[in-house]
Amino acid sequence: MIFLVDHFFEGKPLASRVPLRNNDEIIFVDVTLEPKTTYVDKLATQLKEKFGTVSGIIGIGGGSAMDLAKAVSLMMTNPGSSADYQGWDLVKLPGVYKVGIPTLSGTGAEVSRTTVLTGPTRKLGMNSDFTPFDQIVLDPELTKDAPVNQRFYTGMDCYIHCIESLEGTYLNEFSKSYGEKALELCRKVFVDKNNWDDECDDQLMMASYAGGMSIAYSQVGVAHAVSYGLSYLLGTKHGIGNCIVMNHLEEYYPAGVKEFKYMVEKNNIEIPAGICNSLSEEQFNAMMDVSLGMKPLWENALGKDWATIMTRKKLRALYEKL
Amino acid sequence: MIFLVDHFFEGKPLASRVPLRNNDEIIFVDVTLEPKTTYVDKLATQLKEKFGTVSGIIGIGGGSAMDLAKAVSLMMTNPGSSADYQGWDLVKLPGVYKVGIPTLSGTGAEVSRTTVLTGPTRKLGMNSDFTPFDQIVLDPELTKDAPVNQRFYTGMDCYIHCIESLEGTYLNEFSKSYGEKALELCRKVFVDKNNWDDECDDQLMMASYAGGMSIAYSQVGVAHAVSYGLSYLLGTKHGIGNCIVMNHLEEYYPAGVKEFKYMVEKNNIEIPAGICNSLSEEQFNAMMDVSLGMKPLWENALGKDWATIMTRKKLRALYEKL
Repeated sequence: MIFLVDHFFEGKPLASRVPLRNNDEIIFVDVTLEPKTTYVDKLATQLKEKFGTVSGIIGIGGGSAMDLAKAVSLMMTNPGSSADYQGWDLVKLPGVYKVGIPTLSGTGAEVSRTTVLTGPTRKLGMNSDFTPFDQIVLDPELTKDAPVNQRFYTGMDCYIHCIESLEGTYLNEFSKSYGEKALELCRKVFVDKNNWDDECDDQLMMASYAGGMSIAYSQVGVAHAVSYGLSYLLGTKHGIGNCIVMNHLEEYYPAGVKEFKYMVEKNNIEIPAGICNSLSEEQFNAMMDVSLGMKPLWENALGKDWATIMTRKKLRALYEKL
Repeated sequence: MIFLVDHFFEGKPLASRVPLRNNDEIIFVDVTLEPKTTYVDKLATQLKEKFGTVSGIIGIGGGSAMDLAKAVSLMMTNPGSSADYQGWDLVKLPGVYKVGIPTLSGTGAEVSRTTVLTGPTRKLGMNSDFTPFDQIVLDPELTKDAPVNQRFYTGMDCYIHCIESLEGTYLNEFSKSYGEKALELCRKVFVDKNNWDDECDDQLMMASYAGGMSIAYSQVGVAHAVSYGLSYLLGTKHGIGNCIVMNHLEEYYPAGVKEFKYMVEKNNIEIPAGICNSLSEEQFNAMMDVSLGMKPLWENALGKDWATIMTRKKLRALYEKL
């Protein structure tokens, strides 16, 4: 068993609690940047060279560590580069057994059918029926030591999943029941509570899970489509990128953005601004290409005619505001 | 692929929609009585004799058809009789691929880790990590033609799962979030709505799913423990048996029973009474033995000291009231 552990835990007590046996190995993964297809390929190649194959991959960490675990598992059995599988239902073979153990709540990566990867030409996941973990371990104690800002940004990833799912055209009763529950739990944690306690860790972990389940059978929307462009070009991390975008989406999600701003204020968080101030024409175009390539997200958010609504001009104006 | 289809659908349009290919076969299963271990063994033997093994088992129907599908799948690979596996974690090998397609909402059998079987000495499921379906298809349209009474009884199975899970000592945040959601959906359907519509079918299907998920990681309680005795001795079907018992559980679930009675009245249902009136001493003892054998259920409901609370005398008095 190969444990891909977020480098945040190197030298920390959690790492020494991993019960290694026989040829088991811990690899601390660098998640300073969001996972790249080149990094996935490198890890898979390294494991294949050393072991031929492995019994399983266990990802321990935030969304990046879990997405790496899912992607490396798939690349142990699928030929070529992970970049070949960025898209929907391109993966043809199950990976090796894979387990996710989240140490940060909100991304929903523990249950999603994607892995968010930055490739040579796009930021897009390996979306497939083979992508979800075979097993997950949900232990809210593991999220106790998360930095406050990071916890908020990642928690907001969940909140945004819910708004995008519940307000989307792909909505169905399955996604709705999960989205409503996740939203209720996010509100308990970020709106109702005045101090962080163990119950917050419990509830945010279930919110993340339910939010992830909600989008598994519907889709995310405008915040994600726009923030993927930021991550691709500027390396903006997913949680904070979503917050930067959500801050300016009153037009699309009026009630959600109002509540989002309330939570930002209540939790004393400062959302970065002006991150696109000095970008070139070419850079804006690269971001827009990545963003507009996320067709299912736009269609979920704006309907079948999304392309006539979200024109390049309109998207450009939105990026300039960030 | 072998389709185990509830005999209710013999000659009905649903049966002709099953897309048989090659050696695929439909077997209409008799669910007049709840599944017996002898019936499971017979079906598995018949398939092994005819095909050696099969690619998969697809159960289409209510809780009984789904439980049969799960049990037959397991008995295609595990030696001996299904009665050998009635209990917790006795199943050692994964079954063949199995799929559940519910046509009745409420039992949670589509997601549970058990199959409720009547065996030579007990009514108890094959509870194991290998029991849940590999795949489920949730299509609320399939529940449209369910008889009104049956729909109510099975819906109440879900309601009772929620009360037993949420009021139980095994409760945790995972089970809580599912139980709360399922309860909310049951209330929408059976309390708030005045007429049955498509949305009721949608919501009750998700309620069933969420209620099943809730008890998967907690446990049911008094109503189930007592009603298992009825089913074992009298063949009382699970949904109606739970209702007969729940009607007399004010002492254990005061708020839940009050609401249950309101739903019974609002939906014009008559709950049978006096079903134990003419039982012999021996028969009462047999029911009590089955019921008191459900240790995890009692422990969840009443705590570690359950045996000092639910004495044989007390249980006997409860059975006499039914």
